[in-house]
Amino acid sequence: MDKNNLPVIKVNTKEDIIFETYDCFSNQITDEKDSFDKLNWDHINPATGPIFIVGAEPGDTLEVTIKKIEIKGNVTLFTGPDSGVMGDELTENTIRQLPIINGQIKFDNNIDIPLNKMIGVIGTAPSGDPVSCGTPDSHGGNMDCKEITEGTTLYLPVNVKGALFALGDCHAAMGDGEVSVCGAEVPCEVTVNISVLKNKDWPLPFLIHNDKIMTVSSKETVDEACISATKNMVKFVQKYTDLTLGDSIHLLSLVGNLKICQVVDPNKTVRMELPLSYLKNWN
Amino acid sequence: MDKNNLPVIKVNTKEDIIFETYDCFSNQITDEKDSFDKLNWDHINPATGPIFIVGAEPGDTLEVTIKKIEIKGNVTLFTGPDSGVMGDELTENTIRQLPIINGQIKFDNNIDIPLNKMIGVIGTAPSGDPVSCGTPDSHGGNMDCKEITEGTTLYLPVNVKGALFALGDCHAAMGDGEVSVCGAEVPCEVTVNISVLKNKDWPLPFLIHNDKIMTVSSKETVDEACISATKNMVKFVQKYTDLTLGDSIHLLSLVGNLKICQVVDPNKTVRMELPLSYLKNWN
Repeated sequence: MDKNNLPVIKVNTKEDIIFETYDCFSNQITDEKDSFDKLNWDHINPATGPIFIVGAEPGDTLEVTIKKIEIKGNVTLFTGPDSGVMGDELTENTIRQLPIINGQIKFDNNIDIPLNKMIGVIGTAPSGDPVSCGTPDSHGGNMDCKEITEGTTLYLPVNVKGALFALGDCHAAMGDGEVSVCGAEVPCEVTVNISVLKNKDWPLPFLIHNDKIMTVSSKETVDEACISATKNMVKFVQKYTDLTLGDSIHLLSLVGNLKICQVVDPNKTVRMELPLSYLKNWN
Repeated sequence: MDKNNLPVIKVNTKEDIIFETYDCFSNQITDEKDSFDKLNWDHINPATGPIFIVGAEPGDTLEVTIKKIEIKGNVTLFTGPDSGVMGDELTENTIRQLPIINGQIKFDNNIDIPLNKMIGVIGTAPSGDPVSCGTPDSHGGNMDCKEITEGTTLYLPVNVKGALFALGDCHAAMGDGEVSVCGAEVPCEVTVNISVLKNKDWPLPFLIHNDKIMTVSSKETVDEACISATKNMVKFVQKYTDLTLGDSIHLLSLVGNLKICQVVDPNKTVRMELPLSYLKNWN
């Protein structure tokens, strides 16, 4: 994600846009015997784009409605030494390629896994140095948040003219944590619809899904991400209720849920979830 | 939690036991004007007990079934400078006392909060140095895990003869994170039933609730607790499936959920949740 990347297309707001995405290995793995070491690492975790959003200016907020995620291939899994939470104990790579049959991932003869589609990488170009598509940060990026899915509205910062928005790294399923280092990696077609909002001072990124608002923070440690996601949600509570600062954090302690998105990327990602009904002045 | 504490009673296994618990302030706060500074801090976060479980020997596993949590008073909330996630921004203490009306906590005229009862402190005496009831660790203690509730079966280590089991610090509601530093603190009566299991080599503590198994780990940082809870769940997957180590972590990456219990105590607590149905040999 780089302000110097040339956009592949200019798009008006409020038009449906279909992104064709590779899986996180750029579809390089075609069977379970493929050696992971042969992969071209310059092509890992790609995002499709960027697209230039007409009218998006630095300081604006991008409102991205995710309308559809269509899976376009088999599932690939990878884990191995130095990858994920078990990376210090694994002595060999494990690559799996799995079919999706009747809406379930066929993990083995005994285990079927329900689909839980989501977008791993989604973001805008930062105003400063480029950020790898493997790293999540304040511009979005590799947040690996399973709540970024069909029906979600995601809010991202516009840091440069046209926003330079991109997405990729879709998963057919993933649990909170992404502990192996990947989800059920699949190529997809993703349909989104984008609006540009002016004069908002919301802490970004955040999203709305299933009548909950969720602040999303990516920091070097899970501990730091917990603090940041919570403090961002306190800002929403302060802005959209009449509660004091003390009562705002009381409310979050009782009905907010601090949740893990992923603990395996260069920054770790945490979200704070609050039912929107508690923000009585939310428009 | 101290191996040198004298038990208040000896109890046989498989008898219902009712614990009368104070709230986490030992019921010292009786109105919202009470100065927090006047509190006797030797009486903060008490647990009721310990009880001596007849037949429990070091190395055994305590199986604690939580049958009932009955709330016996109003809700007290506290936050302030140096407490919780907002402790660096708060300039004054905020104490709230709230009634429970028609099964909801009356937060203010506009906000009702549904009950979500749970036990904050529950554990056994460690074999080594005593551990404050404010600190969670491998013996249990102040895990502040909202899944420790009615219907839960919690598994704890027996470190000393009789286990010296105790519990307290019940909450009428709490979200994951416990970000203010407390839940909806209430005195309670808690009914449990305890069994002693011999010759188990399960990683402890863990619990079963709503057909999910959850490993619970408390470490100095959230990052470390994430690793520990995940690795403990990998042990269950290895023990109760035929999956390789690589496929065990793949499974957890797709259908396991790594979740935060609390981020405000001296150790931070994380749980890994997995539907029990994936452990095909679970008895």
